[in-house]
Amino acid sequence: MMIYADNAATTPMSPAALATMVRCLEQQYGNPSSLYELGQRAREVLEQARQEIAAVIGADPREILFTSGGSEADNQAIRSAAELGKKAGKRHIVSTAFEHHAVLHTLKRLESEGFEVTLLDVHTDGLVRPEEVEAALRDDTCLVTVMFANNEIGTIQPIREIGRICREHGVLFHTDAVQAMGHLPIDVKADNIDLLSASAHKFHGPKGIGFLYARKGVKLTNLIEGGAQERGKRAVTENTPAVAAMAVALTEAAAHREQNAAPQSALRDRLIAGLSKIPHSALNGDAEKRLPGNVNFCFEGIEGESLLLLLDDRGICASSGSACTSGSLDPSHVLLAIGRVHDVAHGSLRLSLGEDITEEQVDYIIRNVTEVVEYLRGFSPVWRDLMSGKTPFIL
Amino acid sequence: MMIYADNAATTPMSPAALATMVRCLEQQYGNPSSLYELGQRAREVLEQARQEIAAVIGADPREILFTSGGSEADNQAIRSAAELGKKAGKRHIVSTAFEHHAVLHTLKRLESEGFEVTLLDVHTDGLVRPEEVEAALRDDTCLVTVMFANNEIGTIQPIREIGRICREHGVLFHTDAVQAMGHLPIDVKADNIDLLSASAHKFHGPKGIGFLYARKGVKLTNLIEGGAQERGKRAVTENTPAVAAMAVALTEAAAHREQNAAPQSALRDRLIAGLSKIPHSALNGDAEKRLPGNVNFCFEGIEGESLLLLLDDRGICASSGSACTSGSLDPSHVLLAIGRVHDVAHGSLRLSLGEDITEEQVDYIIRNVTEVVEYLRGFSPVWRDLMSGKTPFIL
Repeated sequence: MMIYADNAATTPMSPAALATMVRCLEQQYGNPSSLYELGQRAREVLEQARQEIAAVIGADPREILFTSGGSEADNQAIRSAAELGKKAGKRHIVSTAFEHHAVLHTLKRLESEGFEVTLLDVHTDGLVRPEEVEAALRDDTCLVTVMFANNEIGTIQPIREIGRICREHGVLFHTDAVQAMGHLPIDVKADNIDLLSASAHKFHGPKGIGFLYARKGVKLTNLIEGGAQERGKRAVTENTPAVAAMAVALTEAAAHREQNAAPQSALRDRLIAGLSKIPHSALNGDAEKRLPGNVNFCFEGIEGESLLLLLDDRGICASSGSACTSGSLDPSHVLLAIGRVHDVAHGSLRLSLGEDITEEQVDYIIRNVTEVVEYLRGFSPVWRDLMSGKTPFIL
Repeated sequence: MMIYADNAATTPMSPAALATMVRCLEQQYGNPSSLYELGQRAREVLEQARQEIAAVIGADPREILFTSGGSEADNQAIRSAAELGKKAGKRHIVSTAFEHHAVLHTLKRLESEGFEVTLLDVHTDGLVRPEEVEAALRDDTCLVTVMFANNEIGTIQPIREIGRICREHGVLFHTDAVQAMGHLPIDVKADNIDLLSASAHKFHGPKGIGFLYARKGVKLTNLIEGGAQERGKRAVTENTPAVAAMAVALTEAAAHREQNAAPQSALRDRLIAGLSKIPHSALNGDAEKRLPGNVNFCFEGIEGESLLLLLDDRGICASSGSACTSGSLDPSHVLLAIGRVHDVAHGSLRLSLGEDITEEQVDYIIRNVTEVVEYLRGFSPVWRDLMSGKTPFIL
């Protein structure tokens, strides 16, 4: 058995999106900026895709800018808001401690350029409190950026409420919706969102493509300077095949979302219930306000990397946190942000299920994670110290 | 007959590159940053591609950074050199008036940030003179950026010589090699290049991917902040399928380059000879030091856009200049830079031939361009004024 349970890192392409991509790679190679028919056909494919994507989130097609992915969209959204803020003499940004690094590192860079950043604490349930966002606002706040759903623990933030507060205070609101897009209902107007980032490969589209929604009237700053493409805001040859495939994948995900969500959430809860039976384990993040496919646990006394390698031997693809920080020895900044101590955070496991997950697969995961955790604890000095009472249990 | 003669705008994918891309899209969907085997297999594909690409240009694999294309690579190269310059108190950059907009617009932005830019004039032959580059260097020059081959008129610059001068003066040298890569021999060491940009879709690879060569020791600044991918220098999920396809396309282009160049250049020259017979026409750029597939003409008394549309009706895909500026009414900055006056520059035609161009196709192009130019002149008031002697001929 091979179970791919790392859909938060990336997803396999949907057959329909793949077919569209291949067809465009073969046929729609024209440059959409070219005048001849081959170019204009590529232009039509591109604009059709823009309309489809806009329709899914309740936006106008002119509010959709294609990017190379979620990170580029995050960077451009935040830099644009900062640029607008600077011009208005506003150099304060509010965000949270558990954002994706594409957001946190961009904010860090802005700090070095004279901006002041307030990073809100995240509660142990992995949820941001709208009233704390409101309390952090100042007269010189130019931007609030809070992710729609967290990439590690899957908790869904009160985006609409935070957006409402931002709008009341005349502050721009950006949300990194990379994990949410295609998996949760998103309506940029009802949700009071000014800027939103998304990445196709998180919803069964191709890698290397994503989009930035920017509400009409929010002036974007270029991250990439160059030609006149994308109304001058992203100056590169448009990646027609990837854009077309992204539109197919998103339309498909949105069409089947409700139908998928209930069984997927039920299996997620079955997985959570099963793993909760492992002694000294704990679910990370709120049990209910979380993505339908996200399960994230800490197991005391073990080390996440060994757990992953042994699960891989048993055909289970999982991760300890974000794929973007793998290779780093630091524990997850998300788990630290929700109050997990270093040792516990090191023993984390993220299982992000696909829409096609089955009960049999969930039970296979429960059985194998339980066995592997027990096995690893068998020769863990940390676990020995915990069992002997030398150090106290935390979970 | 349909003749695609706009390979400088974009190229169709090679069958081998397409096959690799499709195979990776289907099978190598793992996130290369993931620990499990599926991720590690994607990592191997990625690193294998990096080695292959590095080998083509004589670089070390660690000197290759994947980007979303040539424009992003240009932006990151120039911004990185500027950042290094700023730290050393050097804020002067030398470039040329006929660079791609990805370069020119980045330089413009740097000017607004306190940099000083010297744009060298280009001679009527479309060639930059190394001695003029040398004369423009100052004690505070941090970067020289000169394109390898021009995207409109195809002229090949004396890159090795300019690189040698830069190295002698301790100034970083960047070249936008988007048009040259795969079509001309490039050896970053022998050519004295510190930074080089390339784009896959110009050499029969996919759109949305390119690379930046940065010589070991040249510290890059992030354009996109985020995760730890690409050694922290491009913080996005790696686009494994596109990278693998780019490596196949480049390796293939390099392997067949010499073999393709001679017949392609001969057909280019046949096309130039044929179009030269049209009265009051002129080749733009040096006849010999030009890309094997590039032909660029000005025809007095006509308007480029009408010419393109009528050629499209006859199955010929061509352009008036760069695809990146289409939609603009301004004449090509490249043609103005080599001294063409506005009216003449408006009547330009770029035919960029593929490696598989045939004599029959060339003759078809000659016949049809000749006819269409004559037809358009038939009802052009500008042409009437020229013919009546009311305004003097320039060409």
